[in-house]
Amino acid sequence: MRVLVVNPNTTASMTTAIGACARAVAGPGVTVDAVSPVAGPVSIESHHDEVMAAPGVVARVLEGELDGYDGYVVACFGDPALLACREVARGPVVGIAEAAMRTAGYLGRSFSVVTTLARTIGHSRDIARSYGVDALCAGIHACEVPVVELETDPAARARVRDTCRRALAADGSEVLVLGCAGMADLADELSVELGVPVVDGVRAAVTTVEQLVRLGLRTSKVGELAPPPVKAYA
Amino acid sequence: MRVLVVNPNTTASMTTAIGACARAVAGPGVTVDAVSPVAGPVSIESHHDEVMAAPGVVARVLEGELDGYDGYVVACFGDPALLACREVARGPVVGIAEAAMRTAGYLGRSFSVVTTLARTIGHSRDIARSYGVDALCAGIHACEVPVVELETDPAARARVRDTCRRALAADGSEVLVLGCAGMADLADELSVELGVPVVDGVRAAVTTVEQLVRLGLRTSKVGELAPPPVKAYA
Amino acid sequence: MRVLVVNPNTTASMTTAIGACARAVAGPGVTVDAVSPVAGPVSIESHHDEVMAAPGVVARVLEGELDGYDGYVVACFGDPALLACREVARGPVVGIAEAAMRTAGYLGRSFSVVTTLARTIGHSRDIARSYGVDALCAGIHACEVPVVELETDPAARARVRDTCRRALAADGSEVLVLGCAGMADLADELSVELGVPVVDGVRAAVTTVEQLVRLGLRTSKVGELAPPPVKAYA
Amino acid sequence: MRVLVVNPNTTASMTTAIGACARAVAGPGVTVDAVSPVAGPVSIESHHDEVMAAPGVVARVLEGELDGYDGYVVACFGDPALLACREVARGPVVGIAEAAMRTAGYLGRSFSVVTTLARTIGHSRDIARSYGVDALCAGIHACEVPVVELETDPAARARVRDTCRRALAADGSEVLVLGCAGMADLADELSVELGVPVVDGVRAAVTTVEQLVRLGLRTSKVGELAPPPVKAYA
Amino acid sequence: MRVLVVNPNTTASMTTAIGACARAVAGPGVTVDAVSPVAGPVSIESHHDEVMAAPGVVARVLEGELDGYDGYVVACFGDPALLACREVARGPVVGIAEAAMRTAGYLGRSFSVVTTLARTIGHSRDIARSYGVDALCAGIHACEVPVVELETDPAARARVRDTCRRALAADGSEVLVLGCAGMADLADELSVELGVPVVDGVRAAVTTVEQLVRLGLRTSKVGELAPPPVKAYA
Amino acid sequence: MRVLVVNPNTTASMTTAIGACARAVAGPGVTVDAVSPVAGPVSIESHHDEVMAAPGVVARVLEGELDGYDGYVVACFGDPALLACREVARGPVVGIAEAAMRTAGYLGRSFSVVTTLARTIGHSRDIARSYGVDALCAGIHACEVPVVELETDPAARARVRDTCRRALAADGSEVLVLGCAGMADLADELSVELGVPVVDGVRAAVTTVEQLVRLGLRTSKVGELAPPPVKAYA
Repeated sequence: MRVLVVNPNTTASMTTAIGACARAVAGPGVTVDAVSPVAGPVSIESHHDEVMAAPGVVARVLEGELDGYDGYVVACFGDPALLACREVARGPVVGIAEAAMRTAGYLGRSFSVVTTLARTIGHSRDIARSYGVDALCAGIHACEVPVVELETDPAARARVRDTCRRALAADGSEVLVLGCAGMADLADELSVELGVPVVDGVRAAVTTVEQLVRLGLRTSKVGELAPPPVKAYA
Repeated sequence: MRVLVVNPNTTASMTTAIGACARAVAGPGVTVDAVSPVAGPVSIESHHDEVMAAPGVVARVLEGELDGYDGYVVACFGDPALLACREVARGPVVGIAEAAMRTAGYLGRSFSVVTTLARTIGHSRDIARSYGVDALCAGIHACEVPVVELETDPAARARVRDTCRRALAADGSEVLVLGCAGMADLADELSVELGVPVVDGVRAAVTTVEQLVRLGLRTSKVGELAPPPVKAYA
Repeated sequence: MRVLVVNPNTTASMTTAIGACARAVAGPGVTVDAVSPVAGPVSIESHHDEVMAAPGVVARVLEGELDGYDGYVVACFGDPALLACREVARGPVVGIAEAAMRTAGYLGRSFSVVTTLARTIGHSRDIARSYGVDALCAGIHACEVPVVELETDPAARARVRDTCRRALAADGSEVLVLGCAGMADLADELSVELGVPVVDGVRAAVTTVEQLVRLGLRTSKVGELAPPPVKAYA
Repeated sequence: MRVLVVNPNTTASMTTAIGACARAVAGPGVTVDAVSPVAGPVSIESHHDEVMAAPGVVARVLEGELDGYDGYVVACFGDPALLACREVARGPVVGIAEAAMRTAGYLGRSFSVVTTLARTIGHSRDIARSYGVDALCAGIHACEVPVVELETDPAARARVRDTCRRALAADGSEVLVLGCAGMADLADELSVELGVPVVDGVRAAVTTVEQLVRLGLRTSKVGELAPPPVKAYA
Repeated sequence: MRVLVVNPNTTASMTTAIGACARAVAGPGVTVDAVSPVAGPVSIESHHDEVMAAPGVVARVLEGELDGYDGYVVACFGDPALLACREVARGPVVGIAEAAMRTAGYLGRSFSVVTTLARTIGHSRDIARSYGVDALCAGIHACEVPVVELETDPAARARVRDTCRRALAADGSEVLVLGCAGMADLADELSVELGVPVVDGVRAAVTTVEQLVRLGLRTSKVGELAPPPVKAYA
Repeated sequence: MRVLVVNPNTTASMTTAIGACARAVAGPGVTVDAVSPVAGPVSIESHHDEVMAAPGVVARVLEGELDGYDGYVVACFGDPALLACREVARGPVVGIAEAAMRTAGYLGRSFSVVTTLARTIGHSRDIARSYGVDALCAGIHACEVPVVELETDPAARARVRDTCRRALAADGSEVLVLGCAGMADLADELSVELGVPVVDGVRAAVTTVEQLVRLGLRTSKVGELAPPPVKAYA
């Protein structure tokens, strides 16, 4: 089985880290490749960034189709271009936000999300609602660390940790969801420190794709997610 | 006051028609210009189309900012790139779906939407929910006429009309919302035939932009819709 | 175009101020008249007050119909008698709460309402829900200043301001909605001080009526809001 | 214990019937009186009727307070003036719609409402939502029989019955709620014919008032429903 | 009329107290008996406890059916086995949580629940949602006093009181609902101290059963709550 | 990894079939055992059945804990005793209804459920709501085939198929969820016939348990699902 993980931002070091993270949990016989769009923003922290990144994400999936991948992960917590990718791909496409939040639902009454910038909280609420997990999401909190600084700033990890602690206390929740692909490597140590399950969407999503492919389950092509009508372009 | 109406698809005849429709209702002293992206799909009928069209919509708004427009309309019923446009524009940005559905709320207990392709119904429900009008939207129906055929196919208008009639009967609703910029010119005759108010989003949106500008109301810049962080691109 | 603004309370100075506020934003060719019921409570701060004020509001609209007004505004944040006025009027009727809250939706992710007495918060939530804006309304706060004191008490304005500041901070919202017709004149200075859009319902409503009339959109008469059945009275 | 049932319409024969219906189920030691407003519409079938009837309902409750009644029933399925009555009364006030719908919740998974005119369905949905019973209400159906004809038209009873039958089938519900005080006497025979519990709000409400008084439970006076602020009137 | 109150836990002193509480409010001619399951947990504070207690609750109702009881109360705030009891009983079955929460709805805009252990809050939210009272329930708070200690620990009553006070303040609610059958005897003194109506589910439920029986209203047997299909057992 | 699948009913042939179904999709190194309670109903088709089956399900999980299983599946579409099992198990516990419905969410806009008896539809809606998938569940339909007849009656398979076809048409949905463990073996052929993804909860659940264990994710023990308080029993 071959899975393509698309990092919607163009920061190569993040793509590498995301790929390693996904590979570490993939099952035997599952090959994981990680790519970024050829061009686009180095991180996604606004609606504008999402708009600019989305075509590159879809392009990578289209290439993946030519290359025969069995399934795809969209590795940004805004799940940009998710439905467009589902339209063009034969195999399943899973976003890290939807996978993280749905997976968290098996582990406790409610979960808190900790993400990077506060300005992205509204969009996270929107997609939580569209995934049906809004009632299980007790709160969404921002550590106000820009995405690229997660990698580069030593103090960033401490701020993420503090935000997680405050989130659980404020929300009275039982599970933590990491709201950025760049936080993926924090999951295990946070879980030990905080004493709750910590769900990283990269790992949740790649194992979900693996599960769907193994079960022979693919995106339904009878309605909204059928291949897009052939279209002329100006 | 100068308002820029952006038609997200690149069908010039539709842009012209949309511009004329908007101009016909603009108040005195209000200039309306209508543009399409330079490049992009000729119509928007899928998530893929939306992803491909969105950057061009934002680009037109950025140009509009340099040109000093006071406000903007996004003239496609999916309201593509609406929040990204709000981030980058100083003045208000209004989508035709949100304007049509909010305006319909002043006219009756509930409204029905009639749109082009059934595959877009799910997205319409999503944005209705994000605008808070989900409870007022009694149903969304598709006439299954491709967007470009609304202009070119004489039989198309009859199919739109039939779908409208069936929608009102099935939903027991009191107002009709036209779910495509290409249906704008049908509004008045449909209203006479069906005996209910028929809301066209192009006209609702341009008059809403005019209203907001006149009231000195602009997008809030304190949170989610602040100008996007400056971003490096690969 | 002639618009009648009905102040449901009988405080003449408020009616005058409301009329001036509405007139200041009405478009060219739009005449605005403001009236109160002949008899009724001097302010509306309870369900009891609403019940007592409502017949006088409807009476004014009925007179307006004889006088050929094109549309109406109900200028109290509880939107009393709104649906009854819609039944009896040919032209559109808009309440200041619905207009303020719907208009706020174009400007940011969520809004806070600041109103007068805490005992009215429940009713505001009820109508927000019926208008479909409940999810966008991040909080409703009371400054506990009686309606008539807004005009007469110099310290009142400071209390309104403080409540607004605390509301935005507590709710993390992006837009402020003034929850009383008597606060209308505070909108501009509050907006400058707080750095967010501040929506006053009087101005939002009168410009909405103007918009609806200009678009030829009226209350639907096919169902709930048809003229009331002729009725005998004991 | 003395309970006052207020029929918001001024049709004396209905008031008499409502009183008899309530008296038949009141417990020992409970006296039931039934009154109408002195003046007002003979039936309530629109928002306009509700506005015109409401002050008279409140007036009757105020008189009841002087007369020392322990509790009140508002006997019209729109529950007009319910919250205003709660403000002015010391003892509990229960509307027949809220009592019928809450009581139905103890008897099955969902209920259907059958009411008189279709134009009142929207308001019933609104109050169902405010009472929290919206999810249990599987449907609201109208038999299109004017309220006063329920008494006078022999064919009316057959039409109510047919509508009930169709409602249960269409909604797949398990309980029927009669949506008009004038249908109260149909409850028993309908229950036998249809094989489901049929809840009449008059009987549900008067026994609920009795229950609340016996338990020493009254309207909370700490917030929204405290006695209304003393108010000057023009 | 004969009503059987089933205490799902096996603490005999609580069963006695619950019976006395119910008997004190039952109407003339109503006999109340209180029983516990023959075997089972001494208190119900977890999902595990509910599972273990439920068969004994149903068994008591089945015995009650042979003994000709007219109706039943399930006297634990989790309403365990409520729907199973409704399936097997001919007469109505009412849980103390549903009765308390529905009854609270007649008394104010919103209510707060104070219960024993925080770990039961999630389940209370679930059943509040299924009863349709979720929107009226402003908060659920735990005093963290184990159920059996309510009886035995003198300091427990003070902790309950403090939690009630904090709950009303935090939630801004108007009514208090006691979230444990073991708190029943605190209702009157708490109401005097806190100045709000305090609803005890035992008394609310037994008077509701009485009301339903008097009105001839029973569980609907046409769908979900019909007698269970006869079943073979391994 | 060792996974224990608990069939809540005591029909051994179903347990065998369920085990085989689960085993067929388990990954390498994953051992799947399937058991039923020692005693209990042969099928679960009512709330009464659920109450009677639940203790046996929990008992099997407790035994599994002594036996060192890594995770558990509850294999009945009502997910009986799910939260109690989560309390007592160290490893994750997944119900087939929650797994099927959450998995369906990755495949299309909405799904339809086809289950056995109509009387179980209400409970399915309840758990869908608690899992947050209510908005994605376009409809729940019953083929009215008793659970045990799925195995024994040749005509049963045809009735399931017809119900599936009608469900997709009526709901306009894109994915089908099989609402009974006994339908598991129909998934593949139905998917081919109907042209949509068909999700069987047994396979979805066992692969979800595998995923959770592999990711080191377990039930959170900080709140509601902590081990139950030690309890005395009468």
